[in-house]
Amino acid sequence: MDDKVNLAAKLDLLDAAYSPGIVGYINDYKLQVVKAHGEFVWHKHDDTDDFFLVTRGHLTIQLRDRNIELDEGELFVVPRGVEHCPKADEEAHVLLIEPKGTTNTGDVLSALTVSDVPEI
Amino acid sequence: MDDKVNLAAKLDLLDAAYSPGIVGYINDYKLQVVKAHGEFVWHKHDDTDDFFLVTRGHLTIQLRDRNIELDEGELFVVPRGVEHCPKADEEAHVLLIEPKGTTNTGDVLSALTVSDVPEI
Repeated sequence: MDDKVNLAAKLDLLDAAYSPGIVGYINDYKLQVVKAHGEFVWHKHDDTDDFFLVTRGHLTIQLRDRNIELDEGELFVVPRGVEHCPKADEEAHVLLIEPKGTTNTGDVLSALTVSDVPEI
Repeated sequence: MDDKVNLAAKLDLLDAAYSPGIVGYINDYKLQVVKAHGEFVWHKHDDTDDFFLVTRGHLTIQLRDRNIELDEGELFVVPRGVEHCPKADEEAHVLLIEPKGTTNTGDVLSALTVSDVPEI
């Protein structure tokens, strides 16, 4: 991963929604791309903030008290400990940044939990 | 900074090239936007990698042994300790991610050094 990353090209390699791929690292953080489609699962990360940048489409990050509506070129950082549930009526493309070792479904075990995210 | 960030709108707030603004944080990292135009300064960061994502235009990250050419939607992480010098013949817009406390010109003191990056 000593070359540049074209986010759209990496996203083309993904099939299933909410099945992320790692495209690089900055220090102890992993850079992941993911296709969002449908509703994810309510969860939180008690030990880290969670970075979302939409690179295509529209993503809703549901919080318990409000929704964050993200279009292409918009980012939101979910603070640690805050329950959230991403949702996309149509496929959306997302760059996610989290510390290595962060589980995508946080404190919740779900059919969408991916414990070993592949490098793509 | 508990709301979403529209990167283009934040970049519109910037005037000078290579004068970054902080748009948010993830844990101990700052999320910065910057307009690149012309050549920056050769420098390195001995204690951190350096994340660049181009959101508009074209950015060249010159390394000592090669150039990384980034178009919109492309990112590159400069490894720690690696000398680099961004360059843009025409204005380019960039999302930068670095640990808090990282100086934009790394190990070099320059007229472009910004020791106190504003939140915008």
